[in-house]
Amino acid sequence: MADDNTVFIGKKATMNYVLAVVTQFNSGLDEVIIKARGRAISRAVDVAEIVRHRFVQDAVIKDIKIDTEILERGEEGTTANVSSIEIFLKKT
Amino acid sequence: MADDNTVFIGKKATMNYVLAVVTQFNSGLDEVIIKARGRAISRAVDVAEIVRHRFVQDAVIKDIKIDTEILERGEEGTTANVSSIEIFLKKT
Repeated sequence: MADDNTVFIGKKATMNYVLAVVTQFNSGLDEVIIKARGRAISRAVDVAEIVRHRFVQDAVIKDIKIDTEILERGEEGTTANVSSIEIFLKKT
Repeated sequence: MADDNTVFIGKKATMNYVLAVVTQFNSGLDEVIIKARGRAISRAVDVAEIVRHRFVQDAVIKDIKIDTEILERGEEGTTANVSSIEIFLKKT
C-alpha cells in the first residue's frame, strides 16, 4: 500500500488533510507526498499551499508531477482515464 | 493582459480548452502555459494530459508551479485566498 509519507486527498474537508501532512512533518519526516486524482486535485493544491504558508514555513515544493491513470470499472471491463497529481513537499 | 501563449481554464467543457491549447501549438508556438484557479485546477491538469497524450505527442511538461492568490471581494475589503496552478507545456 501507500508509503508512510504519502497523504491521499479525498472528499473530506481540506483541513483534515492539512493536519495529516503537518502531523507527518512533526513526526520527523523531511518529505511528504500529497497525492490526488480527479476533482480532488484542486484540494491537493490547497493543502500544499496551506501547509507551507501557515503551518510548516520551512517546507518548499520540491516537485510536482501529473499523470493519467486508467481505472477499470464494472465487470464489462470498460475503462476511464483520470488525471492525477503528486506534490512533493520538503523541509529545507 | 495575458500573454498570447497562455490559456486560462474556466468553467467551459474541458475539450474547449484542449482545442485552444492545440491551436496555439499549431500556430507555431513552442510553449503554451495553462493557468487555472480554485476548482478549475483539476480541469487544467486534464487539459494538459489530454493535449500531450492525444493531440501533441511531442509536447512535454516543462514545469508546474502552484501559488496562492489573494482575491478582494466586495466593498468591505474582505479577502479570500485561492490556489492557482501554471502548467508549462513545451514541444520537444
